[in-house]
Amino acid sequence: MLLAIPKYEFKERQQKFFGKLVEKNCDAAIVFSVTDIFYLTGFHFHPTERPIGVFIDPNQNVHLFVPALEHEHAKEYGVVDFVHSYPEYPGIKHPMEYLKEVLKEYGFENKTVGYDAIGYGSSMGYRGQSVDAIITVKEFVTLKGVIEEMRFIKSKNEIELIKESCRWGNLAHRLLQKYTKAGLSEIEITSRASMEATMAMIETLGQEYKPHGSTAYAIFRGQIGPQSAFPHAVTQNIVLKKGDTLVTGAASDVFGYTSELERVMFVEEANKEQERYFQYMYEAQEVAFSAIKPGIPCSAVEESVQKYFKEAGITELTSHHTGHNIGLLGHEAPFFDLGDHTEIKPGMVFTVEPGIYVKGLGGFRHSDTVLVTDEGIEMLTYYPRDLQSLIC
Amino acid sequence: MLLAIPKYEFKERQQKFFGKLVEKNCDAAIVFSVTDIFYLTGFHFHPTERPIGVFIDPNQNVHLFVPALEHEHAKEYGVVDFVHSYPEYPGIKHPMEYLKEVLKEYGFENKTVGYDAIGYGSSMGYRGQSVDAIITVKEFVTLKGVIEEMRFIKSKNEIELIKESCRWGNLAHRLLQKYTKAGLSEIEITSRASMEATMAMIETLGQEYKPHGSTAYAIFRGQIGPQSAFPHAVTQNIVLKKGDTLVTGAASDVFGYTSELERVMFVEEANKEQERYFQYMYEAQEVAFSAIKPGIPCSAVEESVQKYFKEAGITELTSHHTGHNIGLLGHEAPFFDLGDHTEIKPGMVFTVEPGIYVKGLGGFRHSDTVLVTDEGIEMLTYYPRDLQSLIC
Repeated sequence: MLLAIPKYEFKERQQKFFGKLVEKNCDAAIVFSVTDIFYLTGFHFHPTERPIGVFIDPNQNVHLFVPALEHEHAKEYGVVDFVHSYPEYPGIKHPMEYLKEVLKEYGFENKTVGYDAIGYGSSMGYRGQSVDAIITVKEFVTLKGVIEEMRFIKSKNEIELIKESCRWGNLAHRLLQKYTKAGLSEIEITSRASMEATMAMIETLGQEYKPHGSTAYAIFRGQIGPQSAFPHAVTQNIVLKKGDTLVTGAASDVFGYTSELERVMFVEEANKEQERYFQYMYEAQEVAFSAIKPGIPCSAVEESVQKYFKEAGITELTSHHTGHNIGLLGHEAPFFDLGDHTEIKPGMVFTVEPGIYVKGLGGFRHSDTVLVTDEGIEMLTYYPRDLQSLIC
Repeated sequence: MLLAIPKYEFKERQQKFFGKLVEKNCDAAIVFSVTDIFYLTGFHFHPTERPIGVFIDPNQNVHLFVPALEHEHAKEYGVVDFVHSYPEYPGIKHPMEYLKEVLKEYGFENKTVGYDAIGYGSSMGYRGQSVDAIITVKEFVTLKGVIEEMRFIKSKNEIELIKESCRWGNLAHRLLQKYTKAGLSEIEITSRASMEATMAMIETLGQEYKPHGSTAYAIFRGQIGPQSAFPHAVTQNIVLKKGDTLVTGAASDVFGYTSELERVMFVEEANKEQERYFQYMYEAQEVAFSAIKPGIPCSAVEESVQKYFKEAGITELTSHHTGHNIGLLGHEAPFFDLGDHTEIKPGMVFTVEPGIYVKGLGGFRHSDTVLVTDEGIEMLTYYPRDLQSLIC
């Protein structure tokens, strides 16, 4: 049972990133993205006002640059060659002044330096100079998207973790369905299902399990009754009524990796209109499943789904693309979208979730997580999709 | 019982923001910060790859710019004059092309335009042009920090919501302490405490309660035993042992507003060394409470605490500043930090949390949330702080 990315895989990722730097003619690099720092080094942390970054020096040493309060933590968990820290932010001397010194010490001056962002960014009260203001280099080169693209195709280990995530999402969803009942508040149902699934998960997996995110959960995110017609509603603490259309969501993070399982459900009964839209949604998802193949562009999947919606005459009831890549973040590029021509490749993991939204009645969206194989797809989520199974 | 910011307060915030634009000689503005969009308009949403922004036109109309899937949602919940939407991201035509058209339509050309960020930013696969590339204006002026500074001082309604947050954080923490026991995993204890507190909270507050964030929770975030010496550890699913030092955290979001309650606790017993460091931490927090007064700079509070630590000879066991503002985000500026000279004013809400970290033994940190009054502080959190009360 795999519950973490092994250290050697972080080293492999770093090697691959060094290769990307060579392709981009970069001698060194600076990375501020929280997700990419974890991807490269295995260091999971709570981002705050205090800048954290990874830099690769011209000798291909990997450094973590952290506030003092993260120094020992980074040394313990980061798969890196060096950890540097500064006292505090804002501090008497700004963290970027400390960064400047270590970058100089490790030979960044007069080199070609890649960066993913021009400086540390945080909504938590951070202010600071951009990297081009603190050090004189030969040239700065943007690496925006480079590590993100490395993350497009999942390794065997990553796929194992995503499958583990699906497993516990499935349990949380099963409990959610079991506890769904007219007269109860959404939060009551989701809290109980999420807690019980989490308890079963930790008893089963034991201490090796590290969430690096959320433990098992199942939610409605406010998509209850007419409010389910907002594709991205937010939790409103609504009390369920007989006949409500519900849109759910369930997953669990496993060492930072997530998955997506969403279902339309109905409280006690579905009327003819609900059945009709359910059927359209169901078929649209089937169209997408059949369309996904390695070698074609992501946009081709969306075109198939939109063609189906157009023929059914319900284009005006749709409002978002069919799916997105998923892994360390809940939404990742590439997208099943008319404007995304990225080639689909084996090892990519996508959500498949065409949706129909009918004002006053509700939203109709299943989401399944699928792995692209050499021939087509392998379903990673496995919760029942048919109408009869989804009446609570 | 107040459970939401009333509509008139969003309008007042907008009026105040218009005043800031006049001060900055701006005719119009564009805001991309998720937190600031909520603060100005009351529209709470899940940020994804799809850009969302607020803009203020030269006639002081407030506009939300959203993807199609958020259009109806924004119309229902956003306190704004207009909602505009684009089909999808990436889409055949990029969202910034649509934004360009609406900005032109509403008279942004040749005007002085303020912006908080040069473009929409997201780690979820977004790529797009900056605003200065899509429209020609007289001048662009940065507004970075302007709305954040408006958020420094809390209104009566905001303080009510933060007090409500403290109440349910207190219950979650009480249950956490009750369920803390050697031999149990941290996730088992925190899940149970969080769920039960959430259940009590929703039964008590009823359907008017909207979390716009997390419902009641209490956590250890991995700060258990020797791991508690990492000031910002992450949940590791550790099993508690007799004698462990624990650092907790508890709160609940109420209409997006949060608070902070943290306690050092000990499993069954505290030894002399643990008692000694507890006492230092306790006294350092007392020093901070006494130091906080309107009219002095934030840095003066930190200076008092550092003076105490220096006299006690334990400076090397400290690694972060004494506290931060709190409200819509868990950490907000200004900070009780040597480098932050912002004047403390009545209505500011701060955490007070000087910490001591002893390798191998554990971390020692209480955090309380306090309101600055005309004379000093009002404690908003009210959980017992003394050692005897914190042995589980």
